[in-house]
Amino acid sequence: MSKTSLLGLLEEREGEYVSGEEISRLLGVSRTAVWKQVRKLEAEGYRIEAVPRLGYRLTGKPSRLTLQELLPKLRTSSFGRRLTLLDVVDSTQNELRLLAERGAEEGTLVIAEQQTSGRGRMGRSWVSPAGKGIWMSLLLRPPVPLPLTPQLTLLAAVALSRAISQQLPALEIGIKWPNDLLVDGKKISGILLESAAEDERLNYIIVGMGISANLEAEDYSEELLSKAISLKMASGQTVDRSALIAAVLEQFEQLYKLYLEQGFAPIRTLWEARSVTLGKRTELYTPQGTVVGVPLGLDDMGGLRIELPDGSARTIYSAEVGASG
Amino acid sequence: MSKTSLLGLLEEREGEYVSGEEISRLLGVSRTAVWKQVRKLEAEGYRIEAVPRLGYRLTGKPSRLTLQELLPKLRTSSFGRRLTLLDVVDSTQNELRLLAERGAEEGTLVIAEQQTSGRGRMGRSWVSPAGKGIWMSLLLRPPVPLPLTPQLTLLAAVALSRAISQQLPALEIGIKWPNDLLVDGKKISGILLESAAEDERLNYIIVGMGISANLEAEDYSEELLSKAISLKMASGQTVDRSALIAAVLEQFEQLYKLYLEQGFAPIRTLWEARSVTLGKRTELYTPQGTVVGVPLGLDDMGGLRIELPDGSARTIYSAEVGASG
Repeated sequence: MSKTSLLGLLEEREGEYVSGEEISRLLGVSRTAVWKQVRKLEAEGYRIEAVPRLGYRLTGKPSRLTLQELLPKLRTSSFGRRLTLLDVVDSTQNELRLLAERGAEEGTLVIAEQQTSGRGRMGRSWVSPAGKGIWMSLLLRPPVPLPLTPQLTLLAAVALSRAISQQLPALEIGIKWPNDLLVDGKKISGILLESAAEDERLNYIIVGMGISANLEAEDYSEELLSKAISLKMASGQTVDRSALIAAVLEQFEQLYKLYLEQGFAPIRTLWEARSVTLGKRTELYTPQGTVVGVPLGLDDMGGLRIELPDGSARTIYSAEVGASG
Repeated sequence: MSKTSLLGLLEEREGEYVSGEEISRLLGVSRTAVWKQVRKLEAEGYRIEAVPRLGYRLTGKPSRLTLQELLPKLRTSSFGRRLTLLDVVDSTQNELRLLAERGAEEGTLVIAEQQTSGRGRMGRSWVSPAGKGIWMSLLLRPPVPLPLTPQLTLLAAVALSRAISQQLPALEIGIKWPNDLLVDGKKISGILLESAAEDERLNYIIVGMGISANLEAEDYSEELLSKAISLKMASGQTVDRSALIAAVLEQFEQLYKLYLEQGFAPIRTLWEARSVTLGKRTELYTPQGTVVGVPLGLDDMGGLRIELPDGSARTIYSAEVGASG
């Protein structure tokens, strides 16, 4: 008996109980084998109710992203209009980089149900189990010089936070500099921009976005649970992933157009309004050592302006934000 | 008859004339075939004197870079200490990028005698014939944030110009913003930095350097001749390529250390002292359109500060410098 035939049988009789005895007879296998296959389907995300004397009943299927479901929801003109939807991939960043090197156009998107080597900031690995999160990479070819790249890092954080707020208005989402999204101090999303440039001219930017949409507590290690949370855990609601993807792309495209037309000023205002980093004594770990000070806001380039204990000011472009308060 | 056997014969009897008849007899080919092979060797850079009745004589061999010649001249601690010397390559940038992606360390160098698809700024092709120029790429992994990359572009120009001045003190070398080296307004060298970053953190920079060392007028198209010149054409001297490579690496390493210790200020001073761009009305073609103004100097980030006709100031990070004066 293959699991698809058990699944086929349960799907055919959806809503009904099918007894173990009947399944065993129809598929020609032992009742123990039936039970093992039921466990396997459950591990893949199917929900199967087992009631003594009545048998098994299919009550839920794993969520899968499909183009059929996603495309009607897209309201963008170019973002996500070239789209690759993959089942399993090492990392959507690597996949999209290959496309970028071959000349793929701005707005090209790679989404994966599962990443086997998802990457986060500073080369850290990123938990990206199948069917529960949003793991995707978006290609930008902005006509801005290389030193302004940090502005796009901040723009991405604003776009994601606005899209999530639109879908789950009850959640209060804060941005930790430069682009982590937090709910109650716990990370719900990570953004990683990889850029390639020739001299001062950006060739492309690949915006990697990971949103812990419907992950359950058991998807996290104990250590991660103290620092990370999913949208489902935080809101109590299962997130419609394709609706959220469409919202992210829409917000991102709108803000990106605004940025290209009006520059960084409006993005800066939106970022600062959602920041949880400003105004609090903070430790910043830079490649040159730890800086302690109070972040005051962003500068014109997208750097973080810090007031140092001696009252002087300094701008930081690259750091990990550590303990604050 | 293969050309190596003709070459072997001429090398064996170096300094002597070998008659066409004898060559023809020893190699068992016609005299026309001998003549054709002589032409082929000449095209590869061998100089062969042909005197009626006396025959052929080898008077010069193409210059070839060898590790035996180069390594004793290196005075660096890390730059060029990992070195790949290739005969023909599509582009040293592509070759080094593969090494960089596999984790090659800072200072790794790729040199090629010839590039089949050498690249210059803005995706332009770059003339890089065999044995006459210096075509090489150097790997940096600077612990500086992405927005400071332009400073390294400027540092590279200073390093190259100082190395060339050291070898050919009579030449007056100017830097056209950001990093073209000129003699009498004609380009002698091009630099192309390709950088890869994750968020604000530079992963690596590949510094491509092309120095038109011993190119002859006939190596340039007529159009290029009005804009470019080789060190040999400008100075009347044949350049010792391995000595110049060693000088570039030494200057580069020294300035790079200085930069990491003291920041951009000393590099800025050196760059401004050699600039031919400052103080003259200049057209700058940016991705957002043409800017006309007078470049005044560099800012702290490495941008070019321009005074506009209305007296206001503006900083440019990415542009082609056009007509000036």
